Amino acid sequence: MNRRKSIVVVGGSAAGPKAAAKARRIDGSAGIVILQKTPELSMATCGYPYYIGGCFNDRNMLLSTPTGVTRDPKFYVNVKDIDARIHTEVTSVDRANHTVSYRNLVTGEQGAIPYDKLIIATGSIAQKPPIAGIDLEGITSLHAIGEADYLRKIRDEGKVKRAVVAGGGLIGMETSEALHMSGIETTVVELLPQILTFLDWELAKIVESHVRSKGVSVFTENGIVEFLGDKGKLAAAKLQSGLELPCELAVVAVGVKPNVHLARDAGLKIGATGGIEVNEYMQTSDPDIYAAGDCVETVNLITKRKELAPYGDLANLQGRVAGENAASENRATFPGTIQTGICKVFDFSAGSTGLSESAAKSSGYNIIAAVNAGADKPSYMDGALLITKLVVEKTSGRILGAQCVGPGNVGKQVAQWAVAIQAGLDLGRIVNADLPYAPPFSQAIDHFITTAHVMQNKMKGRMKGISSVEVKEKTNRGETPFILDVRGPDEYEAMRLGIGEKLIPLGTLRKRLDELPQDKGKEIICYCKISLRAYEAALTLGANGWRNVKVMEGGVAAWPYSREK
Amino acid sequence: MNRRKSIVVVGGSAAGPKAAAKARRIDGSAGIVILQKTPELSMATCGYPYYIGGCFNDRNMLLSTPTGVTRDPKFYVNVKDIDARIHTEVTSVDRANHTVSYRNLVTGEQGAIPYDKLIIATGSIAQKPPIAGIDLEGITSLHAIGEADYLRKIRDEGKVKRAVVAGGGLIGMETSEALHMSGIETTVVELLPQILTFLDWELAKIVESHVRSKGVSVFTENGIVEFLGDKGKLAAAKLQSGLELPCELAVVAVGVKPNVHLARDAGLKIGATGGIEVNEYMQTSDPDIYAAGDCVETVNLITKRKELAPYGDLANLQGRVAGENAASENRATFPGTIQTGICKVFDFSAGSTGLSESAAKSSGYNIIAAVNAGADKPSYMDGALLITKLVVEKTSGRILGAQCVGPGNVGKQVAQWAVAIQAGLDLGRIVNADLPYAPPFSQAIDHFITTAHVMQNKMKGRMKGISSVEVKEKTNRGETPFILDVRGPDEYEAMRLGIGEKLIPLGTLRKRLDELPQDKGKEIICYCKISLRAYEAALTLGANGWRNVKVMEGGVAAWPYSREK
Repeated sequence: MNRRKSIVVVGGSAAGPKAAAKARRIDGSAGIVILQKTPELSMATCGYPYYIGGCFNDRNMLLSTPTGVTRDPKFYVNVKDIDARIHTEVTSVDRANHTVSYRNLVTGEQGAIPYDKLIIATGSIAQKPPIAGIDLEGITSLHAIGEADYLRKIRDEGKVKRAVVAGGGLIGMETSEALHMSGIETTVVELLPQILTFLDWELAKIVESHVRSKGVSVFTENGIVEFLGDKGKLAAAKLQSGLELPCELAVVAVGVKPNVHLARDAGLKIGATGGIEVNEYMQTSDPDIYAAGDCVETVNLITKRKELAPYGDLANLQGRVAGENAASENRATFPGTIQTGICKVFDFSAGSTGLSESAAKSSGYNIIAAVNAGADKPSYMDGALLITKLVVEKTSGRILGAQCVGPGNVGKQVAQWAVAIQAGLDLGRIVNADLPYAPPFSQAIDHFITTAHVMQNKMKGRMKGISSVEVKEKTNRGETPFILDVRGPDEYEAMRLGIGEKLIPLGTLRKRLDELPQDKGKEIICYCKISLRAYEAALTLGANGWRNVKVMEGGVAAWPYSREK
Repeated sequence: MNRRKSIVVVGGSAAGPKAAAKARRIDGSAGIVILQKTPELSMATCGYPYYIGGCFNDRNMLLSTPTGVTRDPKFYVNVKDIDARIHTEVTSVDRANHTVSYRNLVTGEQGAIPYDKLIIATGSIAQKPPIAGIDLEGITSLHAIGEADYLRKIRDEGKVKRAVVAGGGLIGMETSEALHMSGIETTVVELLPQILTFLDWELAKIVESHVRSKGVSVFTENGIVEFLGDKGKLAAAKLQSGLELPCELAVVAVGVKPNVHLARDAGLKIGATGGIEVNEYMQTSDPDIYAAGDCVETVNLITKRKELAPYGDLANLQGRVAGENAASENRATFPGTIQTGICKVFDFSAGSTGLSESAAKSSGYNIIAAVNAGADKPSYMDGALLITKLVVEKTSGRILGAQCVGPGNVGKQVAQWAVAIQAGLDLGRIVNADLPYAPPFSQAIDHFITTAHVMQNKMKGRMKGISSVEVKEKTNRGETPFILDVRGPDEYEAMRLGIGEKLIPLGTLRKRLDELPQDKGKEIICYCKISLRAYEAALTLGANGWRNVKVMEGGVAAWPYSREK
């Protein structure tokens, strides 16, 4: 007899509904059930900060198709022939009998559903650090839609004046902007020395400066040690430094962890990362159970190590693979991640793909890094700044990672690097890439390509680069290299590092060589706005006999420290 | 004795100055001369339409560095130690004696300069079709900066009321927009059946509709047979159709051809394309002479054929390679082009990389094409439409080309495809690509990936796609497939094809199967706005026994013909 296959999906946020929909497309006759604890289905979780910040006001947009149809149980049954049950918590999985037990949180009804294939998409839960006072009224995370509702209500009521955001990661920064846009005086407190740890320190500092310039306070290397209350309500956050920040609202955004209790209770293998172990078919240690989304660990395609990668896009892609395989034989695969991420931070964007310099070093790679600053479009088309840091393996020349920040079109840059890294495209090919150029879209030579040029010049020894961090450390140590700013006098008047530099505009350099150190072996460090002119200056000095000339990569644009003016 | 090497560059627009600058960076002591016929150097040629259209008003921005320094002979000598001579026409090359002869167009001075290495960067010249009356006052091309000045003056004077643009290519469309933005009633006349021939017909028609909606008239399959004058001034353009278009201005933009007379006179090999033949080092048939930019032919990396590729970005990249090799041993290479191009057309962008369907077919490839329509961002972030057509080689699965049009972020899509094609990334990898996702930047599954999904579904036989062109041809032939629109009633009221379709919204389809043809073998064609719901509808019908169900790719969004409403 031809019994209908039963596919049960636990979790109705991103990976779950995607898996169910894909399973339906592959198998038109299977019985497909989604069991979802909350009243909502298929929530656009990544959109919460934009709803809170007032980018849009219709909450239903988080829950509906592009044509405005709410993705509720009725939608699922009519459009997709999927039985989506809300308010339904799965309490256990009986692997021996192939059933899941559930409880309806509204009616109290309990029951069990048999499955042929089970897909676990239980997502993640927000980390809750053990801070005294964390249960005071006014403290929330931003993970569940109810928390988004809570924060949106705060915006709409307009009573909260001061907020603290614990954690300067992706969600923390997006939330800070949303609160600031809601008229709330906002402070970010981050335990680590920098925000946005997918960036290297010096790029994160540039973003941090931008955030500060917008009126949001940022404390790094400082944690919250206690939330202070008044009649059960949050009144202040006390920092490690001893500072007390008065506030009526705190959002705790210190990361998420995989929600694996159901899987663990069922005896499925949990990886060292804390995520459910799956193979390339998204299959758990039980061949009849698949898992996808924030609850699983995945392979880093560069290091080949298992990692957590709780990103909305990967949840969807993994769900698609799990759904296909649950509905048929294992034939679709999900290869892994290169940890590509991006976020908007006021007028800046910050994105990264592959390994940062610090991640590459801590993974044991022998690397060379280069920073390139430049505009995304010609100046006559109002080009905006991009600062890219590229990380390459020294021996193989393999591209390991790229990160980009600035007011320019960061998304396109990171996308190009992400495709290049996943394709294994080498630097030698990128320097001559044929990309879509017209003035409204890019420079004649796109920033992606000039970044490869800078790296190639560095690898070939044509340019001796030095990072802003190294320059700062040198001066901190009391070293006195000859520091040469080759910008124009107007630029020098408008903005100046003040690290003992001498101004000799590039156009006058050849005539003013007598102002350079007599000692041709003296260390000279050149820079300009983005260090393109500085590169020409260094070549000029080299051609005139100076032997130890370096270019400070990224120039003034990528200087992460405070300036004289 | 160590004589300074002499490098002479003929041409001072894009490839020439780039070659000279790169040569200087490689060889700090060589004597480097640029010989430029016009008074301007290093002009941002691609910016002319935006200057004419009033995107910016300072002409010097076309001629200056991002920090506002004019790239004049003084700049070249002071900043780059390059002797850039303007008003200087090169009259001949004496290869035996390694000299070029020149004439100063202002002073009349003549002379000769010895070279060790010569770089020819003479660019292209605008095609001038043999149309009667083409020398009337008021007719110009847009190629030289003087022509940009002429058109900008017309904008500023505000006297011209009507213009005709001959040619619907890239420059023609950019110019049409510029003239329209200058308050001039503009008509585009194109000989071929479509504008923008780097696109396939049906995508070009979508752009054409947008252009029309902005108030620019477009005639295709119609040429100008005569310019009619009045006292030596242009008064009208007479079309093949007999129509006379009154106008005071005509811009002829029917393409460019390589400017090779100097190279030909010097006996260098000219390829069958009409461009100077060069090897991967950008070296001509004379090993001491290099050439770069619009005047050369280059290799198409897909077809391996020699082609012309007069793009500003390639001119810069080729110039860089020619300059490096002229200054040292041949060690830099330029591999070729995949004909990547893009242009802004009012609120749309249109771009392409690799081969279009028609180009691939005429090159003999056995291909499969798929059209995908969708938004670039979530609807709650005001996502805008993208329509992509992907062309894949049937047997190998190799990606041959992608083209994209629409109001959405076309530049990013085409850039991703360009990198993927140049890297040889296969479809199976793209369907799980890890890209930078956050709501301000993309959909959770980026349009680039969904396009690969559509193609994969088609290649695996899960989706039987049919193009809008095939549907139209069917109905034209009098065939009567059952045409099913599965959008919502509101959408149907707002916009409707009117090709005999029946409306059954997807959400009601399962209950209304009795309204479908009794004959389960009957051809059924489904569509919706972008044909995502249509795909689900087709699967539903397939699961219910209908055997000949197709999805019209791209849906209403990609319908290139007129609609009922």
